[in-house]
Amino acid sequence: MKPWEQYLADHREAAVSELVDFLRIPAISSLKEHMGDVAAAAEWTAERLRRAGIENVQVMPTPGPGGAGHPVVYGDWLHAAGKPTVLIYGHFDVQPVDPVNLWTNPPFEPTIRDGRIYARGAGDDKGNMLIPILVAEAFLKSEGKLPVNLKFIFEGQEEIGSPQFVPFVGANKELLEADLVISADGAQESETQPILLVGFKGLVPLQIDVYGAKTDLHSGIYGGAVANPIHALVRLLDGLRSPEGKIQAPGFFDDVVDLTEADRAQIAAVPFDEAKYFADLGVSAGFGEPGYTTVERAWARPTLEINGIWGGFQGEGVKTVLPNEAHAKITCRLVANQDPDQIYRVIEAHLNKAAEETPGVRVVVKQLPGHAYPYLMPADHPANRLVGEVLTEMYGNPPHYVRMGGSVPVLMAFLRQLGIYTVTLAFALEDERHHAPDEFLRLASFERGKVAFGEVWERIAERGLE
Amino acid sequence: MKPWEQYLADHREAAVSELVDFLRIPAISSLKEHMGDVAAAAEWTAERLRRAGIENVQVMPTPGPGGAGHPVVYGDWLHAAGKPTVLIYGHFDVQPVDPVNLWTNPPFEPTIRDGRIYARGAGDDKGNMLIPILVAEAFLKSEGKLPVNLKFIFEGQEEIGSPQFVPFVGANKELLEADLVISADGAQESETQPILLVGFKGLVPLQIDVYGAKTDLHSGIYGGAVANPIHALVRLLDGLRSPEGKIQAPGFFDDVVDLTEADRAQIAAVPFDEAKYFADLGVSAGFGEPGYTTVERAWARPTLEINGIWGGFQGEGVKTVLPNEAHAKITCRLVANQDPDQIYRVIEAHLNKAAEETPGVRVVVKQLPGHAYPYLMPADHPANRLVGEVLTEMYGNPPHYVRMGGSVPVLMAFLRQLGIYTVTLAFALEDERHHAPDEFLRLASFERGKVAFGEVWERIAERGLE
Repeated sequence: MKPWEQYLADHREAAVSELVDFLRIPAISSLKEHMGDVAAAAEWTAERLRRAGIENVQVMPTPGPGGAGHPVVYGDWLHAAGKPTVLIYGHFDVQPVDPVNLWTNPPFEPTIRDGRIYARGAGDDKGNMLIPILVAEAFLKSEGKLPVNLKFIFEGQEEIGSPQFVPFVGANKELLEADLVISADGAQESETQPILLVGFKGLVPLQIDVYGAKTDLHSGIYGGAVANPIHALVRLLDGLRSPEGKIQAPGFFDDVVDLTEADRAQIAAVPFDEAKYFADLGVSAGFGEPGYTTVERAWARPTLEINGIWGGFQGEGVKTVLPNEAHAKITCRLVANQDPDQIYRVIEAHLNKAAEETPGVRVVVKQLPGHAYPYLMPADHPANRLVGEVLTEMYGNPPHYVRMGGSVPVLMAFLRQLGIYTVTLAFALEDERHHAPDEFLRLASFERGKVAFGEVWERIAERGLE
Repeated sequence: MKPWEQYLADHREAAVSELVDFLRIPAISSLKEHMGDVAAAAEWTAERLRRAGIENVQVMPTPGPGGAGHPVVYGDWLHAAGKPTVLIYGHFDVQPVDPVNLWTNPPFEPTIRDGRIYARGAGDDKGNMLIPILVAEAFLKSEGKLPVNLKFIFEGQEEIGSPQFVPFVGANKELLEADLVISADGAQESETQPILLVGFKGLVPLQIDVYGAKTDLHSGIYGGAVANPIHALVRLLDGLRSPEGKIQAPGFFDDVVDLTEADRAQIAAVPFDEAKYFADLGVSAGFGEPGYTTVERAWARPTLEINGIWGGFQGEGVKTVLPNEAHAKITCRLVANQDPDQIYRVIEAHLNKAAEETPGVRVVVKQLPGHAYPYLMPADHPANRLVGEVLTEMYGNPPHYVRMGGSVPVLMAFLRQLGIYTVTLAFALEDERHHAPDEFLRLASFERGKVAFGEVWERIAERGLE
């Protein structure tokens, strides 16, 4: 056992205990009342980097148009002369927790059951992002040095689309200069099957607000004679997709690079048990864009999903109200070469046209912050080959080259601003309920991730990235 | 000035103060946490009846299938030998108050501004129902007797459709036996124009629940491949009405008695300023069933309105969730001769058929408690003639004979179970924001109502009801 591996083995329980501490911080970046918690998670991260022996650690503000955004944590160790420099990326913010009543344990009281740690952020992304810090510490404490030069950059706004972190990257090109980004945000396919992520979808979020009368009205007195904003909203929303699930806004698909037969064959080669997939989710049938397989829909086709809807009375029983407003939030996932701002304009135009045919209400469509460009990495990039080799040795299987429906806006920013690709090295698994109640991380994955990071750094040091 | 009028004049300020007390009780019948408040409003009413000199006052339980329902308050004074017996009806429960942030003052802290009292229940119906109690007291304290025999019956579940009060009426026929019901629940057209209500719509409430996967999912990972219950719900809801607002469920209109040319002429004879109506509501245009005027839509055509919708993320910012459930509440208003249970079945069948064409989700449609039959009273009923006479003298204008979109399920129960029609004598006005934020009652209406009740009782005593 190498010294750094021995160090990690000796500190295994302490590391879990530290993860529990980290998970207690309710760093929900989308909710204003949790801004202080996101800042606390940043301080925790900075302190942990310093304790690991990382140098130049600093919590950096991200100025935004509406005031300060969530902070960024930077640190580095740059004494591996002649070796490549690797920029490690991850995020310490988490998703909201509602509906909180569906959690078995409170989301910020981490609980270990059956070798799994349950908490919001366990796998997305606190568990993953803690791993490279622990591994760097293991090298520095056991061998006094790292095999490569490392820079760490952790953000606190990934879950809201990195609105200020993306410009931060552009404004700090020299600080972040590196030969490769390794992202500690992602997942492996299963406990036996590794993956290399080569594609992420882009993202554009928007909101529709429909307004009717000045106040809520009695639905008996005014119903049938005054437009109901909920009816208008459901009409607008229903017009966004065909009954079969095809997005209807004209121009939406104009810039989509259609899948080639080779692409479809590569996707079909990844084992996928559709019946099990739907059974595990508890749904009776699939649903999606006609002409594509379930995996193609999820990985390689753009989507439009209503994330939330609300209006009128939601309580128990009956309230005979004709409400005066109704709202919906939508996110679209995009594929190469869709441009998020252009796609927003296409949907806005479609909704505004439909609104003209919806009398008696006022419709307001607005883009929400947090867009992301779609991202695609060459499958034969040297980092993919080298990481693929390590994963093959660890799992006994070569990785599948997969795309993901999720969006990591910063990957496109690293590519556009710094000119470097990102390889993802993260060990959450796809069934671990990210963004949903009872999110968890397998502790075995936490261990596996440590070995993987150490091996990858050593191999980059030996062979370089050319 | 007659003695009872003098008594009312002498106690005018005390009466307002009592109304303020009564309005402080947050008797929201639709919310379980307010059950105790509804009971408190019942006790307040009973105590007030006793203090007025009414006899046999009792708070009576309403046993329901799921346990005790909101109580009923009964009282009588039956010493006017040879005179008709009048049953006075009203309700002491109120609507919910959300969105509470739109209230100028807290809804249960009654506030008097510009001769108006603002509070939830001011006009619907606490202010109206207190009037006959005050007038009975005035007769009993000033003259020692009432001109007619009176029975009072006040309920605490009108705002949820009187699910247990309607059977209560059937189970207490002897107790409630009378020659006429006078309902203190309703409104006049304006400060200068009285009305006689001859028609109310029926009501049937229902809920649609749509379920998808076992848990909320990441909309990036699963979006486009797994059915989204919100999309399914908006599709089902949009299919309930045509783009123009015509209800689509086959069979919905089968039992509707179409308006005759005479009916339409009578409705058109009631002055109605459509431009002002929409301007007052703050809407740019009307919307409703093609082929009918705004007033016909509101008074005499059945309606289907979504009262509330919810699902997924409703917070600030963005949450990339594919939610696993979505819900909507609907009420239909019915006209003669639609049967509420039959109409529910028609809509349920339409929704279930649509659900079959909506894969990947489970749709549950359920009727909610509180149906009501539509109600129509002969315009030339003796009580209408007699009350019309009093109103004409008080306002200087004869009343319009109008129908209302609102439902009072008990009117049909009084007719079906007791065989007696109900004349409405209530002095709220239509612009007073019932069921909405900033509900209010003009104090002048409160005074006017007292005179009207006294006059009507005296005239019934003089002329009978034949």
